[in-house]
Amino acid sequence: MTRDDAQALDTADPLARFRDAFDLPRGVIYLDGNSLGPPPLAAHERMAQVTRGEWGDGLIRSWNAAAWIEAPARIGDKIARLIGAKTGEVIVGDSTSVSIFKLAAGALSLRPGRMTLLTETGSFPTDLYALQGLTALLGERVRVKAVAPHDVAAAIDEDTAAVLLTHVHFKSAQRWDLAALTAAAHAKGALVIWDLCHTTGAVALDLNGVEADLAVGCGYKYLNGGPGAPSFLFVAQRHQAAIRSPLWGWMGHAEPFAFEDGYRPAPDIRAQITGTPQVLGLAALEVGVDLQLEADPALVEAKGLALANLFIAEVEARAADPALKLASPRDPAQRGLHVAFTHPQGYALVQAMIARGIIGDFRAPDIARFGFSPLFLSHAQVWDAAHALADILATRAWDRPEFRARAAVT
Amino acid sequence: MTRDDAQALDTADPLARFRDAFDLPRGVIYLDGNSLGPPPLAAHERMAQVTRGEWGDGLIRSWNAAAWIEAPARIGDKIARLIGAKTGEVIVGDSTSVSIFKLAAGALSLRPGRMTLLTETGSFPTDLYALQGLTALLGERVRVKAVAPHDVAAAIDEDTAAVLLTHVHFKSAQRWDLAALTAAAHAKGALVIWDLCHTTGAVALDLNGVEADLAVGCGYKYLNGGPGAPSFLFVAQRHQAAIRSPLWGWMGHAEPFAFEDGYRPAPDIRAQITGTPQVLGLAALEVGVDLQLEADPALVEAKGLALANLFIAEVEARAADPALKLASPRDPAQRGLHVAFTHPQGYALVQAMIARGIIGDFRAPDIARFGFSPLFLSHAQVWDAAHALADILATRAWDRPEFRARAAVT
Repeated sequence: MTRDDAQALDTADPLARFRDAFDLPRGVIYLDGNSLGPPPLAAHERMAQVTRGEWGDGLIRSWNAAAWIEAPARIGDKIARLIGAKTGEVIVGDSTSVSIFKLAAGALSLRPGRMTLLTETGSFPTDLYALQGLTALLGERVRVKAVAPHDVAAAIDEDTAAVLLTHVHFKSAQRWDLAALTAAAHAKGALVIWDLCHTTGAVALDLNGVEADLAVGCGYKYLNGGPGAPSFLFVAQRHQAAIRSPLWGWMGHAEPFAFEDGYRPAPDIRAQITGTPQVLGLAALEVGVDLQLEADPALVEAKGLALANLFIAEVEARAADPALKLASPRDPAQRGLHVAFTHPQGYALVQAMIARGIIGDFRAPDIARFGFSPLFLSHAQVWDAAHALADILATRAWDRPEFRARAAVT
Repeated sequence: MTRDDAQALDTADPLARFRDAFDLPRGVIYLDGNSLGPPPLAAHERMAQVTRGEWGDGLIRSWNAAAWIEAPARIGDKIARLIGAKTGEVIVGDSTSVSIFKLAAGALSLRPGRMTLLTETGSFPTDLYALQGLTALLGERVRVKAVAPHDVAAAIDEDTAAVLLTHVHFKSAQRWDLAALTAAAHAKGALVIWDLCHTTGAVALDLNGVEADLAVGCGYKYLNGGPGAPSFLFVAQRHQAAIRSPLWGWMGHAEPFAFEDGYRPAPDIRAQITGTPQVLGLAALEVGVDLQLEADPALVEAKGLALANLFIAEVEARAADPALKLASPRDPAQRGLHVAFTHPQGYALVQAMIARGIIGDFRAPDIARFGFSPLFLSHAQVWDAAHALADILATRAWDRPEFRARAAVT
């Protein structure tokens, strides 16, 4: 492919108009939207409005007047439309880690008598840790069983309360067959908790269509909701009457302002809310979600995969270094929207690209990871990035002390 | 007292300069900083900096370059200075409700074999609910015992793992004797978890001086950290080696970016962190905390109590309505910085005051609550507010349908 070919794809790109909706520094090619999405331009305006207008002028009145109190459910309903869920099935708040804890405990409440929480080794650490923390708290009543991904389906049995899986793997981008795994779990009477952190806003989803049970997702990656944005949590309507959150707080009460001494959970998804909504984070997130809702999820996924395919093809066609190895599935149907390459100097490689204005990230021990957010990237940018990577490898431009000196990375 | 007397107090007020540091609407007398503090003017600038500069320009690099990753511990250390704690004893993140859950479970881990979590009836609901949720999760292993405040000290026994108390009561402003109750609990081998939501930034504290164990506090009240600001959590250094958080997440791991499958808690207060820090909320909170650090806590408390005393005296001297009753302790030594009056038409009363630009709030069933934040209120404003309340009562100005129609309130 020539750069002109890439530019021709941009001209025909039905999502091209979204590029102008983001605030990205000039000269930067941002291949890390899968870690932290950039701000929509509208987020700046909205944050000024919420801090000056709603907080400063409205003060306490804004809980009602600016509908802050409704934000967790309102934004949840919007996210529901992105993931194939119904109104009233999604709520926003707390970190992803805390939401996983809620759903893991919730799954146990839905499957009394079953003692196992099953998950995959090598998953995103917080998924494993949330389960481990829950079982450490509960003692011998339950256990975490972590098996290699290819052993997960066979490990589901009559003792499995729930399986927690990351739909798109944070390192490899390997994508689970969400429908098949859900059906396999249901066949054994188990639930599945889907971690959709690298899915939402990237890979098209139909949670209701596959009879998904529970899910959690991240606000600050492909939803472009801001650093540390609150997570969302999905509970299928058929589970809402029976599920019990472990984290009871005043905002999950049926009547928060009755100030009763005894907890009575809200009869719906609101029972999954715990404390006071984090208004500033929610405000930024809503801007990102609103923008995402303007794009057709099928087009989003198709463009992201096309960008990733372009990147892989151009890198592999030009990179002479045999130490560079694709660590993501070659088949796009089995992949999310990022691509991992391993290289012994993966860290320095990423630093050398950053020095050229191309921002990807590194994942220990040797992964250079590049994300292809469909809303703000162009084919020409991805072509440029691939050629830069090939050039850095060919010239060993990564081999400089300042690129090899490790700092804490995220 | 005449209005001139009140103005003379303002002239002599050593905290007067702080009034210009806040963004408050003209014509508003804001007596609800105990529910949601107003924005420091510097918060607006800081939020623009964090969203445009750090998020937009810095993108993912800001986790290190803008020290986002350090925010929970950095802001925690600043709050430590406000509450008489040491560096490394306070961390910021999650909602107050979630933090209470962490500390309640943590207290159980520090007192194995003890089965009771003791608290007071009529406490802020989330305090009760967090304990109830924890015991519902743990089953018969532990129980919540809620007794009337005057029975708390006597109810502490050898089965008590911890006592959870709100230092300053959210309705009455009744203030616990923090030192005495802590000593009484320690005498029985029990811990105390202090809820400092209505204390921090208001009532001077010396947690280390009284050998406090555990505490939690709110960012959005007297710290003026923004709507739904993250809470803080204090664990005395002597407990940090043994305490175990129930909410394990990647940011509490000893090496978050090692991406290990097994959880190894950080060896210090960071083990209380769970998920990714909520950067936007933390940024606003830090501005409020920085401002608070410029004020002498003893002066802050003294001014707040003086304002509250002025309000009580002026209201009682002028209000002819015998249905209005002080529901807060008359002795300032037993009171925080807000004042509660009960009145059968408490809700309408608060609405009638809001219509005159004087914002307090209502707490069911009949409490009109007024907070006296020392940094941004003047004695003259409080004098005006007291006279407005007296006038509204004398003229029954509250008796209008639009004031009596209840909406959801916070």
